[in-house]
Amino acid sequence: MTLEKIRELLENKDYKTLKAQLSEENPADVALLLDDLTKEEAVVAYRLLPKDQATDVFAHLEGDNREALITAFSDKELEDVIKDLFIDDTVDLIEEMPASVVKRILKHTDPESRLIINEILNYPKDSAGSIMTTEFVTLRANMTVEEAFDRIRRTGVDKETIYTCYVTSDKKELLGTVSVKELLLSDYSTKIGDIMEDNPISVKTTDDREETAKQLTHYDFIAMPVTDGDNRLVGIVTFDDAMDVIEDETEEDFAIMAAITPSEDDYLHTSVLTHAKNRIVWLLFLMLSATITGLIISHYEEAFSAIPILVSFIPMLMDTGGNCGSQSSTMIIRGLALDEIKFKDFFRVMFKEFGISIAVGILLVIVNSIRIAFMYRGSSEFSSLSLALAVGITLQLTITLSKILGCILPMAAKKLNLDPAIMAAPLITTIVDTCSVLIFFKVSILILHI
Amino acid sequence: MTLEKIRELLENKDYKTLKAQLSEENPADVALLLDDLTKEEAVVAYRLLPKDQATDVFAHLEGDNREALITAFSDKELEDVIKDLFIDDTVDLIEEMPASVVKRILKHTDPESRLIINEILNYPKDSAGSIMTTEFVTLRANMTVEEAFDRIRRTGVDKETIYTCYVTSDKKELLGTVSVKELLLSDYSTKIGDIMEDNPISVKTTDDREETAKQLTHYDFIAMPVTDGDNRLVGIVTFDDAMDVIEDETEEDFAIMAAITPSEDDYLHTSVLTHAKNRIVWLLFLMLSATITGLIISHYEEAFSAIPILVSFIPMLMDTGGNCGSQSSTMIIRGLALDEIKFKDFFRVMFKEFGISIAVGILLVIVNSIRIAFMYRGSSEFSSLSLALAVGITLQLTITLSKILGCILPMAAKKLNLDPAIMAAPLITTIVDTCSVLIFFKVSILILHI
Repeated sequence: MTLEKIRELLENKDYKTLKAQLSEENPADVALLLDDLTKEEAVVAYRLLPKDQATDVFAHLEGDNREALITAFSDKELEDVIKDLFIDDTVDLIEEMPASVVKRILKHTDPESRLIINEILNYPKDSAGSIMTTEFVTLRANMTVEEAFDRIRRTGVDKETIYTCYVTSDKKELLGTVSVKELLLSDYSTKIGDIMEDNPISVKTTDDREETAKQLTHYDFIAMPVTDGDNRLVGIVTFDDAMDVIEDETEEDFAIMAAITPSEDDYLHTSVLTHAKNRIVWLLFLMLSATITGLIISHYEEAFSAIPILVSFIPMLMDTGGNCGSQSSTMIIRGLALDEIKFKDFFRVMFKEFGISIAVGILLVIVNSIRIAFMYRGSSEFSSLSLALAVGITLQLTITLSKILGCILPMAAKKLNLDPAIMAAPLITTIVDTCSVLIFFKVSILILHI
Repeated sequence: MTLEKIRELLENKDYKTLKAQLSEENPADVALLLDDLTKEEAVVAYRLLPKDQATDVFAHLEGDNREALITAFSDKELEDVIKDLFIDDTVDLIEEMPASVVKRILKHTDPESRLIINEILNYPKDSAGSIMTTEFVTLRANMTVEEAFDRIRRTGVDKETIYTCYVTSDKKELLGTVSVKELLLSDYSTKIGDIMEDNPISVKTTDDREETAKQLTHYDFIAMPVTDGDNRLVGIVTFDDAMDVIEDETEEDFAIMAAITPSEDDYLHTSVLTHAKNRIVWLLFLMLSATITGLIISHYEEAFSAIPILVSFIPMLMDTGGNCGSQSSTMIIRGLALDEIKFKDFFRVMFKEFGISIAVGILLVIVNSIRIAFMYRGSSEFSSLSLALAVGITLQLTITLSKILGCILPMAAKKLNLDPAIMAAPLITTIVDTCSVLIFFKVSILILHI
């Protein structure tokens, strides 16, 4: 179903057809469509949805229309939605809404859920606790498989996933896990304790949410159990939420690596001024840093007054240094993010980058020397060989320096508990620029006897 | 368990302790450890694993040790592993191995699996067909829930996931899906046809694998069904494989955006020469492109001989232009990759970037003018006001140009079915450099009356 089609049916007030067609669609698709409608249209369309589809659609909504819908909801409608939402989705909703709406949501939440919501809201923003849901199936080790199925049937309907069940002690400590597949393939009389996975893997509520998501991917889990300080099972993080976390963190890295303050909103839903605000801080800082390179150039005015052609090599040296540095830093930043590179690999990485810098450097220097020899032969002010030598030496030094900085800086940042992504192309380019210009003039003066 | 501990136990030949400790670990963790051992160590350690853990560990291995293990395997051992591997993992294995090993693997595969493997291998590398598995549970619409459970118990043990079951017709056409949760919460006598999800969402074997993975995330599916040209269900793509695809594609984007030819191997397992090879092509191309900027500078030798200070602004202009362009292109490339931005948003995006360029431009120009006024007041060759004006106009034009190019080029690439990621910082920086230097000299000559 397309946006145009919905709009047409809304305009013609053909609600019967619209209702029939919407109910055929997957909730995730209906939500996408509703996100793109105006607030007024979204409210009308939402009210046409069958009740069992409506909450699913609501849970998938992302834009500003969620607030519009809640504002339009009667108390009864709001209560129905909140009752059917999983706890983690309710928490997400509350985190997005303005205070007045939050108050109204909490008013229509039962006291028990309210307590849980408040607890989750209290976990640090980037923790596993803040993204977990508290709805999961618990079993006891002395239950039989038959009893386990009874329990799943009785309590499973409200759980976000039932496919991994958690075996807990009287004190709610996590003892093991058992999958529904294992249950289905076992005899009814088998004891849960005999088929459960011992040594269950879990994370703490205070663990980093990105780390939690990575662990879940590493183990191919459907859900990762979350325990509190006393090893009591308090929640689970499901695979779909983990995928969202990984996506968020990746987008954050892309933004930081491009010198942008990360934001959670998507591009088109962000205003020009917010975009500008997210970009200006780094631009300003980098612009002022780049003036240092300018000052160095001024300092060598005599050199390039004598041989003006020198100036024309500056862009090539700056760009090549920047590109080399950004290649290395990108590889290292990603390697660190994916745990493929650890701090203990520091020297191994440095030697590798040094080797790479020599390999690419030699080729670039040769190509560049041929170009210079060809373009500047027979010049009266300088020998083209000396010029090729000066530029070549600078080029190789710049490449090696930028590749080494490109690996050292992100790893150092990681060690200092900073985000390695800040040590990406923009910053490294600025640093390498300064160095390459300085090296260039020093080397040129020496070799060309200026 | 740590790598050091394994090595110590191997060295002391304390295989009993090692066996006991390895069997306590999750297969994914054992695989990580085995990847880091030498080939000889890995073979010894692998043979200590309990049989039911061994294949799981083998499926998780990533490095060169897989080949070493297969070479060391007896025919019986190889047959056991291949029999227990899921079809998609066998296909992955075959794709990695040299021809001689592949031959041996296929020799120990039963004829039926061999046929399926060959079919999967024939799908294009980036298609849904190439990453699907053919092991899933099918049900019939006229079955009861009880019959469905019987079937799952009978056939489920070898299936990669049983949690979504697929309802097919006599002709193997996909009619609907039903989750085990739904089955567990329904009466035994209920007909599958009554509880199944109609209008099942599926992809085609020839669909793009990245698109398939994105669809799966969009719908929060555990597995995405894959159908052939006749709408027959031929496979499923499970969520863990979809997560791997998304990760691969993201890493590919990071590499391309940093001017690196993407490769599938991780950083530390790639040789210096391969790294150099992956980086040299773009470096060479960009280095030669940057000489154009140099030629422009040479062309204006007269201008900067008259006012040498002009040269010192070139790095600041080049860097700011590059940073502005890379901010925009990164946002657009990611927006396109996540389907948040579509080609139909072309003008909306362009106006947004234009607005942003004015907003950040004004502030940068003001700060820069203050700096110039302060540093160069009382100069004899030129008025600091004119200089600030010339640099300011160039700065604003460069910022606007780079932000506009930063959004137009990736979107144009997308439209031309090229990867938008090639239009990232390195290429845009080089283009913007040329333009900004050209603008700078033209504007300076005009305003400073050189």
